[in-house]
Amino acid sequence: MNEPLPTVLLTGFEPFGRDALNPSWDAVRRLEDEVIAGHRIVATCLPVEFGRSLAVLRTHVERLRPALVLAVGLAGGRAAISLERVAINVDDARIPDNAGRQPVDEPVDPAGPAACFARLPLKAMLAALREAGIPAEVSQTAGTFVCNHVFYGLMRLLEGSGARGGFIHVPYCPSQAAYHPGAPSMAPETVMEALRIAVRVALTVEHDLRLTAGAEH
Amino acid sequence: MNEPLPTVLLTGFEPFGRDALNPSWDAVRRLEDEVIAGHRIVATCLPVEFGRSLAVLRTHVERLRPALVLAVGLAGGRAAISLERVAINVDDARIPDNAGRQPVDEPVDPAGPAACFARLPLKAMLAALREAGIPAEVSQTAGTFVCNHVFYGLMRLLEGSGARGGFIHVPYCPSQAAYHPGAPSMAPETVMEALRIAVRVALTVEHDLRLTAGAEH
Amino acid sequence: MNEPLPTVLLTGFEPFGRDALNPSWDAVRRLEDEVIAGHRIVATCLPVEFGRSLAVLRTHVERLRPALVLAVGLAGGRAAISLERVAINVDDARIPDNAGRQPVDEPVDPAGPAACFARLPLKAMLAALREAGIPAEVSQTAGTFVCNHVFYGLMRLLEGSGARGGFIHVPYCPSQAAYHPGAPSMAPETVMEALRIAVRVALTVEHDLRLTAGAEH
Amino acid sequence: MNEPLPTVLLTGFEPFGRDALNPSWDAVRRLEDEVIAGHRIVATCLPVEFGRSLAVLRTHVERLRPALVLAVGLAGGRAAISLERVAINVDDARIPDNAGRQPVDEPVDPAGPAACFARLPLKAMLAALREAGIPAEVSQTAGTFVCNHVFYGLMRLLEGSGARGGFIHVPYCPSQAAYHPGAPSMAPETVMEALRIAVRVALTVEHDLRLTAGAEH
Repeated sequence: MNEPLPTVLLTGFEPFGRDALNPSWDAVRRLEDEVIAGHRIVATCLPVEFGRSLAVLRTHVERLRPALVLAVGLAGGRAAISLERVAINVDDARIPDNAGRQPVDEPVDPAGPAACFARLPLKAMLAALREAGIPAEVSQTAGTFVCNHVFYGLMRLLEGSGARGGFIHVPYCPSQAAYHPGAPSMAPETVMEALRIAVRVALTVEHDLRLTAGAEH
Repeated sequence: MNEPLPTVLLTGFEPFGRDALNPSWDAVRRLEDEVIAGHRIVATCLPVEFGRSLAVLRTHVERLRPALVLAVGLAGGRAAISLERVAINVDDARIPDNAGRQPVDEPVDPAGPAACFARLPLKAMLAALREAGIPAEVSQTAGTFVCNHVFYGLMRLLEGSGARGGFIHVPYCPSQAAYHPGAPSMAPETVMEALRIAVRVALTVEHDLRLTAGAEH
Repeated sequence: MNEPLPTVLLTGFEPFGRDALNPSWDAVRRLEDEVIAGHRIVATCLPVEFGRSLAVLRTHVERLRPALVLAVGLAGGRAAISLERVAINVDDARIPDNAGRQPVDEPVDPAGPAACFARLPLKAMLAALREAGIPAEVSQTAGTFVCNHVFYGLMRLLEGSGARGGFIHVPYCPSQAAYHPGAPSMAPETVMEALRIAVRVALTVEHDLRLTAGAEH
Repeated sequence: MNEPLPTVLLTGFEPFGRDALNPSWDAVRRLEDEVIAGHRIVATCLPVEFGRSLAVLRTHVERLRPALVLAVGLAGGRAAISLERVAINVDDARIPDNAGRQPVDEPVDPAGPAACFARLPLKAMLAALREAGIPAEVSQTAGTFVCNHVFYGLMRLLEGSGARGGFIHVPYCPSQAAYHPGAPSMAPETVMEALRIAVRVALTVEHDLRLTAGAEH
């Protein structure tokens, strides 16, 4: 009898704001059950809600004990796959979440540190994406809305485990950008391929590259 | 014996500047011989050279007598398919063309008017592209480099004929944008689909829509 | 008894859209009666209305017979003083004008050419502004709203006269940008100094510089 | 005999990269010896060098024991006064510093936490700036270059003291933007007024406003 494969948990988000779809979930759900570097992908959709998003994430992480968790979210207006470097311990919502909550300058976790870094070989992921012809960048901020909230909570969840994890922002899909004049977009197929590469590098590269991807400001 | 189909001439450009490819030609050449609304696509690559680009274009237009000519060029940095409204009678090159020429404030055609409008149902094309989920815009300037030069020369060539024609700018493809940090891109398949829609609407819509696509500045 | 000085007509616009002020008129009115290169500045405020703006402009031009007319307008979102190169014969209003009119794809002048060029030494003006430490650019489009409408109408008015004329777009002032997050701005004093330089160069430089200020798209 | 006034330490930076001046120091040095809310301004110029910048800062902080320290730096390309929320424990230099050092993914302080928050009433500062007609924003990242390095080191220095402190990024000045086409700028006088307001609010407002200034990403 076969051992079940170890897993990778990919999460996307449901739609929020005025958009009827969310390309993060569209890409993630289509990767369900793919096998990458000997790991099976499990896909989960998170609500765009402070608090409940993290409760759902915790349930899945505790049940699956995945080797890697990549949370994926929409960054409408960005042009590239954004590999997030750091989550900060702040909720500051410019718009209400999908449950109508709008925290201002509250901590994600009152007992937590000011920030948590991704546990990912970000520079190796960046290099692999660019070599594959996919626009990518390391980002120094995941914002202060539900994406950053989930990212921060995820890194706290993974503390003490050997699991890797982090957060990736993706651009609008073309059909969204068609109604956001001037906004960049990325084809769903490109986003899916980017996530496959991100997962493979995160699972297989132990020591990150020494490659600058900083910002003067 | 069959009548040969009437034709549509699509032109793309060879690479220029520091880029090793040009997504305008990549998309156009892959549409060669497709049949849209009863017309066969003929694809031609133009040199990025003042003067010679127009000489090559003229040869093909005079030989083919196409019902429609769409010239396609790269607008690195734009996020959407740009339907150009107007060509101006100015060459003002910020960088040299591929033959090393760099005209400044010279007319494309000393005997021509200040500008020529596209002969296309631009607003109907815009609406059809957006309905198909493709980011698109009407642009009020095609610049002052070889793209505008070809657009202006094309509209002069078509004067007095019944043919329609105009110019479409396309974004970087993803593999280019991977080396232009922050720049938007569009998948080649999306660009090809956009050109198919543009050709079909240009061939079949007689009276344009009354749909605003203006700019305050 | 002294001869009256020859004049320069500067026009600004009243506020439009959701803004309570218009930095174009704020700068222009403060230059009233200054003398530059032997010419006295006359300042006029134009309504943001298709048609009536041009009627008001015509009255002043016919009465004053100025040596130079610079129309100045707001380009919210631009970062630099924009020296407009070309006015096109199109009204295409994305938003209603201040009288509620919203023309779409109508000509400014049904009897006019597709476009009119500024009659200004644009490149010499650009060089002088930059040397004075003022961000400046040559722009290839003045849009399709009332600014372009006035610019086009102005160039038609000046045909056959020896007068020079053109259009300059200015950024938001800082107090506007404070409520347009992310938008660039320019201090009123900098705008005033830019207009003084523009007037002086327009009055005194006969042959323009050969200086590229083009755009690839 | 009079008590000496308590002090506020303002720091700016020397020029870096290809720019011949740095508007952060230009503004800060002109505020030297002004008195705001009963505190005298002391101005210091920091080198754009990892390590040495912090050594210089430490010397001044230990000598002066200021009630408030605001470090000010240039963010070329931003349009508004940026009130930085958080410093991260990472040096990742895209370009070399002025001593030729280019650390990649090194901690500012190997013994420090992942991040430190500004100790400033950021939202009250934001509101006061906007009310004064000055474009301003709360920023979620100070980058990964010397500005973030100084910000992080400053917050570590102030730990355990009652002093407030933080970091403010300012745009290019106009004469710089004249040679960075398309880049926003801010007049030196506006930057000086912004810093006066920032100092006054930081010294006098005990409890910050509940005002959202977050970002979705």
